[in-house]
Amino acid sequence: MELLEAMNWRYAAKKMNGQKVPAEKLDTILEAIRLSASSVGLQPYNVIVIDNHELKGKIHEKACPQPQIVEGSHLLVFAHWANLDASQIDAYIQLIASTRNVSVESLTPFADSIKGGLLSKTPEDQAIWASRQAYIGLGSALIAAATEHVDATPMEGFNAAALDELLDLPAKGLRSVALVALGYRDDEKDFLAKAPKVRRAKEQFFIELA
Amino acid sequence: MELLEAMNWRYAAKKMNGQKVPAEKLDTILEAIRLSASSVGLQPYNVIVIDNHELKGKIHEKACPQPQIVEGSHLLVFAHWANLDASQIDAYIQLIASTRNVSVESLTPFADSIKGGLLSKTPEDQAIWASRQAYIGLGSALIAAATEHVDATPMEGFNAAALDELLDLPAKGLRSVALVALGYRDDEKDFLAKAPKVRRAKEQFFIELA
Repeated sequence: MELLEAMNWRYAAKKMNGQKVPAEKLDTILEAIRLSASSVGLQPYNVIVIDNHELKGKIHEKACPQPQIVEGSHLLVFAHWANLDASQIDAYIQLIASTRNVSVESLTPFADSIKGGLLSKTPEDQAIWASRQAYIGLGSALIAAATEHVDATPMEGFNAAALDELLDLPAKGLRSVALVALGYRDDEKDFLAKAPKVRRAKEQFFIELA
Repeated sequence: MELLEAMNWRYAAKKMNGQKVPAEKLDTILEAIRLSASSVGLQPYNVIVIDNHELKGKIHEKACPQPQIVEGSHLLVFAHWANLDASQIDAYIQLIASTRNVSVESLTPFADSIKGGLLSKTPEDQAIWASRQAYIGLGSALIAAATEHVDATPMEGFNAAALDELLDLPAKGLRSVALVALGYRDDEKDFLAKAPKVRRAKEQFFIELA
């Protein structure tokens, strides 16, 4: 499906029908997230992929009452790194060195520049920065799902503290920031399934300085 | 171009060759941003599209020394709404009503829910929330550019205060949060043009709770 056609097709399904997303489609969606850009390439977040009815039920009960949690096929939890430290950046530099077959030493200026930029931020600003990168990945997930004709409902309105506890995220150094339920729209039960998309007109959204 | 192929092709070009992006490709990229999802659909940001060599030169001089600013074809400035207020939400509700041909009154519960959720946040949390939505649009821009075989370099490392002043953003109620230079990679001058993409392995990036 062409990109704009897919983006016009998609919407945030409010009711899903329980149908499972096939593995190959899920893989494409996840790969799009993994390939997403992030500032300096650090990917300061993880994505938790939940395909367990019982666990989704607990999340629905304790952290997010929206029906897509249990009506969807898979639930993606976007969780940014709660803290930044030099070891994460060193691991990234090692990954660049091995991927590109260059020495770690040759990357020292880059490493120092990342450390200087990120480790001087306050913990609050580090969290804001990391969460924004996760949103790039979230956007990729929505687009990739649409091109696979899979519905994807992003959700911010959940109890993050309860979810983090349920998934043991603090022990993993993670903090949940957004959810995406993957599945299939319930055309009959979702009154929004046929509603026209609402977006500001180009003239109200773009400011052209030619 | 298929989505994953496009995402593998893309990278953040460090050097661009000055070639212009054709209007129809630019339109596709902008439309992908405009169609992007945002929380409650509010699209709490604008995108400034700059195609003026002199203005790009000033931005390069005063706010962002990266060469892509002037070597690129178009510069996109993602600027979130600096403040949230009821009038923005009311305008959005009016837009829904006219787009879907429903009464404003029928949308009152939705309007109240948005106002309750957003206007109770602190100004700082409103800004964080709005900036995250802009990053979804930024992610869409990167993907749409790649599918059009246009390079797109996202940039956070700029002097936002200087840029905002230069573009008169405070008067527009906007605050810049990220840039994207659109253009074409300079294969010869950019040592990263042929470098393998660096991403954490699936096993390090996803946490599967089956």
